[in-house]
Amino acid sequence: MRLSTRNQLDGTVISITRGEAMAVVRVRLAGGDEITSSITRDAVDDLALTDGARVKVLVKSTEVTLGVE
Amino acid sequence: MRLSTRNQLDGTVISITRGEAMAVVRVRLAGGDEITSSITRDAVDDLALTDGARVKVLVKSTEVTLGVE
Amino acid sequence: MRLSTRNQLDGTVISITRGEAMAVVRVRLAGGDEITSSITRDAVDDLALTDGARVKVLVKSTEVTLGVE
Amino acid sequence: MRLSTRNQLDGTVISITRGEAMAVVRVRLAGGDEITSSITRDAVDDLALTDGARVKVLVKSTEVTLGVE
Amino acid sequence: MRLSTRNQLDGTVISITRGEAMAVVRVRLAGGDEITSSITRDAVDDLALTDGARVKVLVKSTEVTLGVE
Amino acid sequence: MRLSTRNQLDGTVISITRGEAMAVVRVRLAGGDEITSSITRDAVDDLALTDGARVKVLVKSTEVTLGVE
Repeated sequence: MRLSTRNQLDGTVISITRGEAMAVVRVRLAGGDEITSSITRDAVDDLALTDGARVKVLVKSTEVTLGVE
Repeated sequence: MRLSTRNQLDGTVISITRGEAMAVVRVRLAGGDEITSSITRDAVDDLALTDGARVKVLVKSTEVTLGVE
Repeated sequence: MRLSTRNQLDGTVISITRGEAMAVVRVRLAGGDEITSSITRDAVDDLALTDGARVKVLVKSTEVTLGVE
Repeated sequence: MRLSTRNQLDGTVISITRGEAMAVVRVRLAGGDEITSSITRDAVDDLALTDGARVKVLVKSTEVTLGVE
Repeated sequence: MRLSTRNQLDGTVISITRGEAMAVVRVRLAGGDEITSSITRDAVDDLALTDGARVKVLVKSTEVTLGVE
Repeated sequence: MRLSTRNQLDGTVISITRGEAMAVVRVRLAGGDEITSSITRDAVDDLALTDGARVKVLVKSTEVTLGVE
């Protein structure tokens, strides 16, 4: 499936922390940057995510805030 | 200012496209991955963003969707 | 691609209104309900959306508000 | 109250799963499509939601992603 | 209509800037703080918003980020 | 750090409720209005939030819905 989402980055799962309803998945992007995703436990199970799994990291452009120091 | 946002990545602005009310800012992350941000034109002006500017890219973990092929 | 998004509904595009940077796409769901999506013009072009196109409508469960009258 | 939200669909609650802080509410739209909403337990109590309750399902158009297979 | 949204504040419209597809509405809260809302032009028309109009300002609690200096 | 976020209001923490993974932080704005934020417990700890702490309340303008009664 191709998506309207502008940001679709390649990454690898480096850790999964399961809570009661939600899970926190840590992903290393191809370039080395790391990103954290909070998704439902159901989604982790449905996608059969495990450490080392190759994933797409999807973020809508309207959800990306910029800061300047 | 320190923020509750989980994802705070270093990047460099590589292009800015100004629309009437909104602007699209393209950023290269430290590791080389590229990400697109849609923010208001006012924000681009307030932050004085230009090509080559160093920025923080902020994304809430609940806004990060994962996909598996 | 399989996604962590909980809501993935089948629909058909019934109209596309192009703005300068954004587009408004109207979709009829399989059951007949209609839903409006605001995405970038770039996304409309990349997906080659036209009236009558079959699409998946994706909405995160945390973005669904409920009201009672 | 009338709202700026573009998508306001009629539905009926078909299940409520209560977690510690959050609840997952499953709703059948008028046309038969089903949609999942994650809201706070407080909200479920405030709205006195029960199976069979008539609800409005509200989704901002900027939160609707489209996909094409 | 009663809503699952946690934050529902009273305010008064102090300015409306219309773009092609989107509009920016500036609102003064009861206590004097000011807040900016970006909604569709269609929504501004449907709600017949004008300067001085009394409105409810609705924000989901998951969309409120906190910062410390 | 200066941010692209349009809404940056001054407030004071008046209560913190810690859940397993998430926390609910109640903040009084300078003008007296109160607002609720749901952030991760990790963020509460990282920012060392306590009752009485001075905070910035950040909300993107696209996340502010308006209603009229």
